[in-house]
Amino acid sequence: MAAFQAPSSISSSSSTFLVHNGFSLRSSKICPPRSRTWVLKCVAAPPNSETAHKTKVSRNENMAKLQAGYLFPEIARRRSAHLLKYPDAKVISLGIGDTTEPIPDVITSAMAWRSRALSTIEGYSGYGAEQGEQKLRAAIASTYYGDLGIEEADIFVSDGAKCDISRLQMLFGSNVTMAVQDPSYPAYVDSSVIMGQTGEYYNDIKKYGNIEYMRCTPENGFFPNLSTTSKTDIIFFCSPNNPTGSTASRDQLTQLVQFARESGSIIVYDSAYAMYISDDSPRSIFEIPGAKEVAIETSSFSKYAGFTGVRLGWTVVPKELLFSNGFPVAKDFNRIVCTCFNGASNISQAGGLACLSPDGLKAMGDVINFYKENTAIIVDTFTSLGFNVYGGKNAPYVWVHFPGRSSWDVFAEILEKTHLVTTPGSGFGPGGEGFIRVSAFGHRENVLEACKRLKQLYK
Amino acid sequence: MAAFQAPSSISSSSSTFLVHNGFSLRSSKICPPRSRTWVLKCVAAPPNSETAHKTKVSRNENMAKLQAGYLFPEIARRRSAHLLKYPDAKVISLGIGDTTEPIPDVITSAMAWRSRALSTIEGYSGYGAEQGEQKLRAAIASTYYGDLGIEEADIFVSDGAKCDISRLQMLFGSNVTMAVQDPSYPAYVDSSVIMGQTGEYYNDIKKYGNIEYMRCTPENGFFPNLSTTSKTDIIFFCSPNNPTGSTASRDQLTQLVQFARESGSIIVYDSAYAMYISDDSPRSIFEIPGAKEVAIETSSFSKYAGFTGVRLGWTVVPKELLFSNGFPVAKDFNRIVCTCFNGASNISQAGGLACLSPDGLKAMGDVINFYKENTAIIVDTFTSLGFNVYGGKNAPYVWVHFPGRSSWDVFAEILEKTHLVTTPGSGFGPGGEGFIRVSAFGHRENVLEACKRLKQLYK
Repeated sequence: MAAFQAPSSISSSSSTFLVHNGFSLRSSKICPPRSRTWVLKCVAAPPNSETAHKTKVSRNENMAKLQAGYLFPEIARRRSAHLLKYPDAKVISLGIGDTTEPIPDVITSAMAWRSRALSTIEGYSGYGAEQGEQKLRAAIASTYYGDLGIEEADIFVSDGAKCDISRLQMLFGSNVTMAVQDPSYPAYVDSSVIMGQTGEYYNDIKKYGNIEYMRCTPENGFFPNLSTTSKTDIIFFCSPNNPTGSTASRDQLTQLVQFARESGSIIVYDSAYAMYISDDSPRSIFEIPGAKEVAIETSSFSKYAGFTGVRLGWTVVPKELLFSNGFPVAKDFNRIVCTCFNGASNISQAGGLACLSPDGLKAMGDVINFYKENTAIIVDTFTSLGFNVYGGKNAPYVWVHFPGRSSWDVFAEILEKTHLVTTPGSGFGPGGEGFIRVSAFGHRENVLEACKRLKQLYK
Repeated sequence: MAAFQAPSSISSSSSTFLVHNGFSLRSSKICPPRSRTWVLKCVAAPPNSETAHKTKVSRNENMAKLQAGYLFPEIARRRSAHLLKYPDAKVISLGIGDTTEPIPDVITSAMAWRSRALSTIEGYSGYGAEQGEQKLRAAIASTYYGDLGIEEADIFVSDGAKCDISRLQMLFGSNVTMAVQDPSYPAYVDSSVIMGQTGEYYNDIKKYGNIEYMRCTPENGFFPNLSTTSKTDIIFFCSPNNPTGSTASRDQLTQLVQFARESGSIIVYDSAYAMYISDDSPRSIFEIPGAKEVAIETSSFSKYAGFTGVRLGWTVVPKELLFSNGFPVAKDFNRIVCTCFNGASNISQAGGLACLSPDGLKAMGDVINFYKENTAIIVDTFTSLGFNVYGGKNAPYVWVHFPGRSSWDVFAEILEKTHLVTTPGSGFGPGGEGFIRVSAFGHRENVLEACKRLKQLYK
């Protein structure tokens, strides 16, 4: 997905790879606690002798197709390089969509209680059901899909939406075709490449072969022109959208479901930001009549409860969704979950259950409102500076247009001059070129300070 | 893998599937709390109308190759059916290898503390590094691989060995060949089938095409005859072995590493039971000279700390391991981990770190010793009854021979007559036919009661 140059010399045919820009990857100085920057250290330096033993196992050619690094580790790398250059800088990250506010006590208390209970005979539990604990599945079904005909048995609890996207790709296999919004969350395309669903990457157009990129721009209201969209087996669709922050309306989602029904496609609907919706846009694809026969929905507690590190999400695979031969998709997904996964942590699940209690729901709502206030501050800042700004209303992401400029150049300019980390839009696909995604996750004082610096830069 | 008949009528070409044996899957009566039996409810009943909308997406043909259900859910299903038949029976499970003893307080305290800290500004953490927290990686490296040349950066923390096996299969892709011990843990073969590495299943020989089944029997000391083993890209090897409980000696593992070096293969070494070793057998494949250039090792806190529900494991991908083109395997595994996974739960990782403290290591050792006492009781019981019994010395599994009998028949006989759940050996591959795996995970009084019932049955 990544439409940027690899900063290090990594070649699929080379037996060695270089350290980044000459600075050591092993230095502990670039690894502050609780920072993602030490992902630099993630892979140890391999032997660089030509005489090293090599296995006869061929590298998976799909892996070789992947371009450069996954977007967010690449951003972390650039952040670390910046810190080396400016060791005293107060870097503020509005980059990766990582939650920053403490988890409400009603939720962590439940996890602490469950942890402690594991030391008692009565409270101990070992393997849980791979599909998730019954109470949690029931609570998710009733809380988010109460009147939509989605039942407990349709819910598969997971360790997060990204992980489930990958499991869904294993379910579909390598012989399906797929469409994505362009721009979109990189994991859709990258997991598709890994599974062998795509062709090669074409650097001139910044696209992989055999993927339908559904362009989403300000001109089309960030909703693709379905009349010119090729039919594919799978349609990944995220609303509220990451990165554009746009939300599809009821009418638009009705069009999408109709399109999928006519095309015989399966929609994988990512609703990880649905609780940020403050207008009457649908919060679930299953609000659209007929969606249960054409859609899977994946979601997460990450951005609702600050569970990015706790890891808990879910996927809805309705019993009504059938392959062309009539076989239920849920039956195969269940097999994937049982074979390739062993359920989310029981402690995280206790937290999820607390999230869905009356107090938990209120507490989650308060945190979401806090981030939405951040979003408004960021939107106001860029608007006051004369930028065209999108998103932000129903999502914690603000999508800022820098017409005619390279996203990575803007990213570098902002980092260099204000010590702020954003996310370059082109990292989400060619349709993101010329945009920057600004995340509203952050402490209030940091968001205010960031906006102050931006005002100085672009005044 | 499963060499048994599907109990329900599930056809890949049918648009409906029947409920199991006529009893409702939706009854809450068969779903006691904290039981795996409710996996029966995992997939809701699909619409059985021929007029239902079907997508045009073809079912993944690899999924269609899989035989019946994954072994352990199938056992859970039979257990539930037994409970329906004998609602007052005190069923004791020595079946799935699920830990039963409370987690030592030193470990759960750390998890409770980390949970609570997430409610504070200082203690909150969001996304961690996908590869795991630095301190935990370092602690795993020093505790288990201190003098073996394995470094922190070679360690990838995960949510369990089963999950990592699947991620490793994504890494390898569909064009590799693989070998497994026969019998072996079903996830190796099933994930291989899902990834498309295998041919069809041959019901007459209970094997998939294009897999090398390395027969492990009492006659060869449960170590395969490598002189007649076909060369494959990948060799899955588990020691101490699940299900046979046997452990490969240093000499045998030296042979295995030599075989892999000569064949150009990659060994995926599963050491999830290594802490159960009480003799001088190697606890890691990396104790064998030259292994770092040919082996990956996957392991887990599940059976050490009772973390089957907490979910925490790790995989070692040494920097010295190279594909045929010299590209480091770790580099691609890192990409898989970053794209398809988002790290283990931060709370679980806090637990893992506590496990590796001096007090935690002692506490884990005590629990392991408790299970090893259970093992000795079970071994003595079957031995006294005149059975040939294997394993048990270095593993929590006892492998009991019932020559000339079907494993599922023996499983059914024991369940019917003693209300004990075991695991049929044939569920682990054709080489397991005629054996039963008895797990030593259980409360002492249950193990004693189980042995009493077995003595009555087989006296």
